[in-house]
Amino acid sequence: MTPNQVSRRGMMLVLSSPSGAGKSTISRALLANHDNLTMSISATTRSIRPGEVNGKDYIFIDQAKFDAMVAEGEFLEYATVFGNSYGTPRGSVMDALNSGQDVLFDVDWQGTQQLRQNALEDLVSIFVLPPSIEELERRLYSRAQDTEEVVKGRMARAHDEISHWAEYDYIIINDEVDISVSTAESILTAERARRRRQIGLADFVRGTGVS
Amino acid sequence: MTPNQVSRRGMMLVLSSPSGAGKSTISRALLANHDNLTMSISATTRSIRPGEVNGKDYIFIDQAKFDAMVAEGEFLEYATVFGNSYGTPRGSVMDALNSGQDVLFDVDWQGTQQLRQNALEDLVSIFVLPPSIEELERRLYSRAQDTEEVVKGRMARAHDEISHWAEYDYIIINDEVDISVSTAESILTAERARRRRQIGLADFVRGTGVS
Repeated sequence: MTPNQVSRRGMMLVLSSPSGAGKSTISRALLANHDNLTMSISATTRSIRPGEVNGKDYIFIDQAKFDAMVAEGEFLEYATVFGNSYGTPRGSVMDALNSGQDVLFDVDWQGTQQLRQNALEDLVSIFVLPPSIEELERRLYSRAQDTEEVVKGRMARAHDEISHWAEYDYIIINDEVDISVSTAESILTAERARRRRQIGLADFVRGTGVS
Repeated sequence: MTPNQVSRRGMMLVLSSPSGAGKSTISRALLANHDNLTMSISATTRSIRPGEVNGKDYIFIDQAKFDAMVAEGEFLEYATVFGNSYGTPRGSVMDALNSGQDVLFDVDWQGTQQLRQNALEDLVSIFVLPPSIEELERRLYSRAQDTEEVVKGRMARAHDEISHWAEYDYIIINDEVDISVSTAESILTAERARRRRQIGLADFVRGTGVS
């Protein structure tokens, strides 16, 4: 057995932030640079849109099936947004973690709270803060097609989201995006070196006879 | 207030490993590349050696002073080795942590256990494992000037040290030293992004008005 063959349990990596804080850029960079990290795929009751692929973008199911999965405790987290239900199926995530894959989640503070309740040991949570209120407003207002009402609603949701920053393991203030990406990558690397995720270590130590 | 000005509490970073596993190389690289990280300076009762500087290599004190410091609980950890006493003064470490400096410790499993008891929240512990027993023996035997007896004693201590790997937060198997250094640097970067060490975050969030 070589060190690279020490078996690992994957982690659930959560990135939360208000809209406009730069979370999507960080997520994309992480996914592009790390083969062992995949995006979690949610089940949803909303209709499939042109260009979407069932099982890749979402798992499209009807409300009866969704409700049955809720009743069976098959979601790690779920929520209803604008009348559509979304949930993270437990089975596929646990399969990934068991095979040593890391899974990235793009969920808000409410989703993160549910993940914490259901899978605390596997969870690594990062909150991305904007560098200033002016910068956040600038980013939210710069989508020129939106009415002021829409922007105000978005700003209110941003404040609500930010009010939960203290529930997260790590905080990244996204001032320079390159540094933020590098910090997120360090968190991924460090958490992979965490003893309790390297579940093959006892076998490794025994196998090498070093102890 | 800019993101860089968010005040931080430093961490106590412990690297433990058996002799011959490559810990010193990793320590040197960390200290060379990270200005904000300094080596902990122990107090000791042993005599000063030519070339050593009091207050830099060690703080040289007599046994009466050492015993008084033990009695006052002024050591974060201490031990007696070959009749000489060594201890880490609590005051200077806490001053460093309070000012946002990170402090590196080169202590064995017994020292780490004491640090854990005295300062768990500030402690980040890494254990460096050799990639194989053959490699460890090769490294220990290659110091040609040593007698077989000395090497055997060193090997026994190595086994004793390794038997405590499971008490550490992070495990690095030191197969390729560049990767090990990079992993240790990721741990340092990640732990600096940990919410509870960024003690100025509440002020930052309030100050920016983002929440």
